[in-house]
Amino acid sequence: MTEQNKPSGWKHKLHEIIYEADTPAGKFFDIVLFALIILSVILVMLESVDHIDKEHHKILLTLEWGITIFFTLEYIARVISIKKPFKYIFSFYGIIDFISTIPLYLSYILAGSQVLLAVRAFRLLRVFRILKLVKFIGEASQLQSALKASRTKIAVFIYVVLILSVILGTLMYLIEGDDAGFTSIPTSIYWTIVTLTTVGYGDIAPQTPLGQFLATVIMILGYGIIAVPTGIVTAEFSRSSKNVKDGGHMVHVNTQACPNCSAEGHRDDATHCYNCGHSL
Amino acid sequence: MTEQNKPSGWKHKLHEIIYEADTPAGKFFDIVLFALIILSVILVMLESVDHIDKEHHKILLTLEWGITIFFTLEYIARVISIKKPFKYIFSFYGIIDFISTIPLYLSYILAGSQVLLAVRAFRLLRVFRILKLVKFIGEASQLQSALKASRTKIAVFIYVVLILSVILGTLMYLIEGDDAGFTSIPTSIYWTIVTLTTVGYGDIAPQTPLGQFLATVIMILGYGIIAVPTGIVTAEFSRSSKNVKDGGHMVHVNTQACPNCSAEGHRDDATHCYNCGHSL
Amino acid sequence: MTEQNKPSGWKHKLHEIIYEADTPAGKFFDIVLFALIILSVILVMLESVDHIDKEHHKILLTLEWGITIFFTLEYIARVISIKKPFKYIFSFYGIIDFISTIPLYLSYILAGSQVLLAVRAFRLLRVFRILKLVKFIGEASQLQSALKASRTKIAVFIYVVLILSVILGTLMYLIEGDDAGFTSIPTSIYWTIVTLTTVGYGDIAPQTPLGQFLATVIMILGYGIIAVPTGIVTAEFSRSSKNVKDGGHMVHVNTQACPNCSAEGHRDDATHCYNCGHSL
Amino acid sequence: MTEQNKPSGWKHKLHEIIYEADTPAGKFFDIVLFALIILSVILVMLESVDHIDKEHHKILLTLEWGITIFFTLEYIARVISIKKPFKYIFSFYGIIDFISTIPLYLSYILAGSQVLLAVRAFRLLRVFRILKLVKFIGEASQLQSALKASRTKIAVFIYVVLILSVILGTLMYLIEGDDAGFTSIPTSIYWTIVTLTTVGYGDIAPQTPLGQFLATVIMILGYGIIAVPTGIVTAEFSRSSKNVKDGGHMVHVNTQACPNCSAEGHRDDATHCYNCGHSL
Repeated sequence: MTEQNKPSGWKHKLHEIIYEADTPAGKFFDIVLFALIILSVILVMLESVDHIDKEHHKILLTLEWGITIFFTLEYIARVISIKKPFKYIFSFYGIIDFISTIPLYLSYILAGSQVLLAVRAFRLLRVFRILKLVKFIGEASQLQSALKASRTKIAVFIYVVLILSVILGTLMYLIEGDDAGFTSIPTSIYWTIVTLTTVGYGDIAPQTPLGQFLATVIMILGYGIIAVPTGIVTAEFSRSSKNVKDGGHMVHVNTQACPNCSAEGHRDDATHCYNCGHSL
Repeated sequence: MTEQNKPSGWKHKLHEIIYEADTPAGKFFDIVLFALIILSVILVMLESVDHIDKEHHKILLTLEWGITIFFTLEYIARVISIKKPFKYIFSFYGIIDFISTIPLYLSYILAGSQVLLAVRAFRLLRVFRILKLVKFIGEASQLQSALKASRTKIAVFIYVVLILSVILGTLMYLIEGDDAGFTSIPTSIYWTIVTLTTVGYGDIAPQTPLGQFLATVIMILGYGIIAVPTGIVTAEFSRSSKNVKDGGHMVHVNTQACPNCSAEGHRDDATHCYNCGHSL
Repeated sequence: MTEQNKPSGWKHKLHEIIYEADTPAGKFFDIVLFALIILSVILVMLESVDHIDKEHHKILLTLEWGITIFFTLEYIARVISIKKPFKYIFSFYGIIDFISTIPLYLSYILAGSQVLLAVRAFRLLRVFRILKLVKFIGEASQLQSALKASRTKIAVFIYVVLILSVILGTLMYLIEGDDAGFTSIPTSIYWTIVTLTTVGYGDIAPQTPLGQFLATVIMILGYGIIAVPTGIVTAEFSRSSKNVKDGGHMVHVNTQACPNCSAEGHRDDATHCYNCGHSL
Repeated sequence: MTEQNKPSGWKHKLHEIIYEADTPAGKFFDIVLFALIILSVILVMLESVDHIDKEHHKILLTLEWGITIFFTLEYIARVISIKKPFKYIFSFYGIIDFISTIPLYLSYILAGSQVLLAVRAFRLLRVFRILKLVKFIGEASQLQSALKASRTKIAVFIYVVLILSVILGTLMYLIEGDDAGFTSIPTSIYWTIVTLTTVGYGDIAPQTPLGQFLATVIMILGYGIIAVPTGIVTAEFSRSSKNVKDGGHMVHVNTQACPNCSAEGHRDDATHCYNCGHSL
């Protein structure tokens, strides 16, 4: 807290609370924000259920207003407390914060339920802020780095899956035709992906023996090639978790026994017994 | 068998039979109990099938009474034979034992089929006792420790899956609307999870081209990210089974440094430095 | 071909052809048998398709008679050519051979289509003979040993899955009730397994919000725990394939460079450069 | 650019552009070709959607003609610029190039919508050319080699899955019969594969308790054995990625023994014994 910071002492404090999480006030703020984001997402969900919206419209609207006002104040506080406000406003989270705040105000200015629906969806982007919190959980970064390392391989895999789907989907379209629901090549490709990924809705299903045979081939193919992304990611995980493990905490020991005390399990590079100190 | 145990000699014997499994009588008791628990679960199942319950109601009730009386006697024996009965009564398995015994008696005191149904469900908790037996199978503990080690990573994974489901579910709600069965955001999220986990009931299925395209993306996503929990657990298994396999070749070392030569990486149980032989 | 074998010289030759596969005649016999077993299975399949059976009944019956006569002769030859006929007759494959041969004869003695259907199913057991051939493919034994090693762990896993299914199935029965198709506890357990294994027929699907929520939990559970058998088997495979690999063909080398020729990648225990022979 | 190449200078340049990708012109050509193949596939898809084809038939036909003319010129250029034209024409990609070009011309010569449909499907084979581009992505070759290494094991696995499906499918046919949709053994086998691979359409579903029980067994089986291909591929990936990762730490050694000291395990490229320095 040098001279420089004095004039903006309260701004500095506000910055600490809003942007950081290493003070009790900062942690408390983060927890409240987290809870309100979750609550606002639940509100959006409940509003979409017709009979709940009809019965409890007033309560939902009141809560929504409460959250919107909190988000508005929070947004203003974020803009004020930061040194370079414009950098924040046009950053990824700055835009998300703005989009999370504005919809309710817009719904009074703009008309049309269709528009409101679309606006509501943007509001859901608030959950991305929760994703920021994931960073605090240490394990997430290990997951992320393993996925990043296998990114190219997975892209190649998805690319091959898509080509397979296009070819097999067209074949199914030729075999089955309109009667069984394979009304166009895109629809057939949709069905092929539904089958290849072992989802299997059953809204479209092959009727001809040849179609059922090809469907069988697609299923076994899908059942088999699921091994590929799993193999890629697992190999990455094994590697990264091995590296973590090797971090000086596990060493290779041999079956040598101490000539003095018979203790076993010495390091490969050991010259003295870890138990009695006798030369090995 | 010292003086102290004499007055309660039969209690000691009872304790051995009921709580332990290393005497022939104890083993026999465990097997009988196991069989009765399985039988009682099957009885609950059969009672729930209308036409079986109508035809064989008397037989089912008689068997149920037999099991309930056995469980009652067993519960009393457990309370008597233990030194600290209250500790048992309020322990996890003590409560389960009580809940497993009481329903049939309650069904005569309390009325209303709805209540009886709920009570029947509690009776099913008896199977948890079977889980205790799993402990005897050596491999289970290895499974358990591998799962425990990957717990945090799997929690992060489920967390990300849920956020994805909420966002994608809302998008599907906006795209598909009421006609295709996407009547509300919670229903859409339900459908998204059904699709993402490759279950795919087909009770709800997208109708619009854009909806089918997004569904396709969700499927491939689900097909791909199944690799993540698999990768996590497999890496754990490989590690734990490797440690077991290497039998004496890998040991855990700590970060302690030798006060004499500063060598690091000593065995947890080391008393002397492996490098210079100085006492640790 | 010593004196002893002379009286049964042709029996010995027959034995070689039928039971062994290391002579040209023996190999040819195995291939013919393999083809006929496959053909007979296809015949059973085609007979079960109503419109094919009606149109081509005579051809199917003629072919079936041909195969049955071949199998009869083969069975007699097997009994004659072996030294201990009774040991063969009551062995696993002896019984399967008998069951594979008898149905067509029985269909003329015994009446009733229901019986014939059942008998036809036994005929399908002939395919097990094909499984014997799998042994010749070297890789199969590695697969088998990996599966055998993870047998106990997989049994524990299935055991836990079944208990989970019983408990979750009962809960779904209590929540959903008769309306949504959850007519009894066994049906609910059936549905739970359909969901947990990510099969998802959709013949039964939850209707209530609470039921859909629990269904969602079951799906994510199933999506997650599929990692467990995969992890078990993969760890086994990695281990067994590593052992195969380590068979003297891969060694660990260090980053040491030869002081004479700068060649890198020497064995850890190398004392001379592999490239120029200079002392390291 | 020696004397010999002079007379065919422009052919050489054309060859460089069409067949190679290491000049700016070659790269540009590849990108244009890639875009046109994708566009042509999208055109085929859109043509198959009835209402799009009706509304925009003229635009689609014009674009199709444009692409066909480009493919025609490209095909002629490929034949001219290569030294051994017939080797190209009858090569795999030569035939695909021809088949990708001819359909539109044929549609004017030959009549019948059925034929045209089939011809359209061949046109889709153009995407195989895109697969050639996959080679440029480095990771693909690692994927390919891992899959190649596990080919035999996966073949054994699919073989066992098919036998299981035939046996279990026949059993389901006997248990369920015509009422539940199990109208023939092939249909039952189709259903079994749908269930075993966890696809689960739900177009056919067991109705009897015994059928549902067997279905449950099939599901758990399918849920479990998905671990096998995954285990196979993962073990391969772990191995291959380990080799790549260890960059200089693991080398392949052969079974050669030193003529001087009989030490074994020399690097493939070793010229001297690593143990005694003797020439190999």
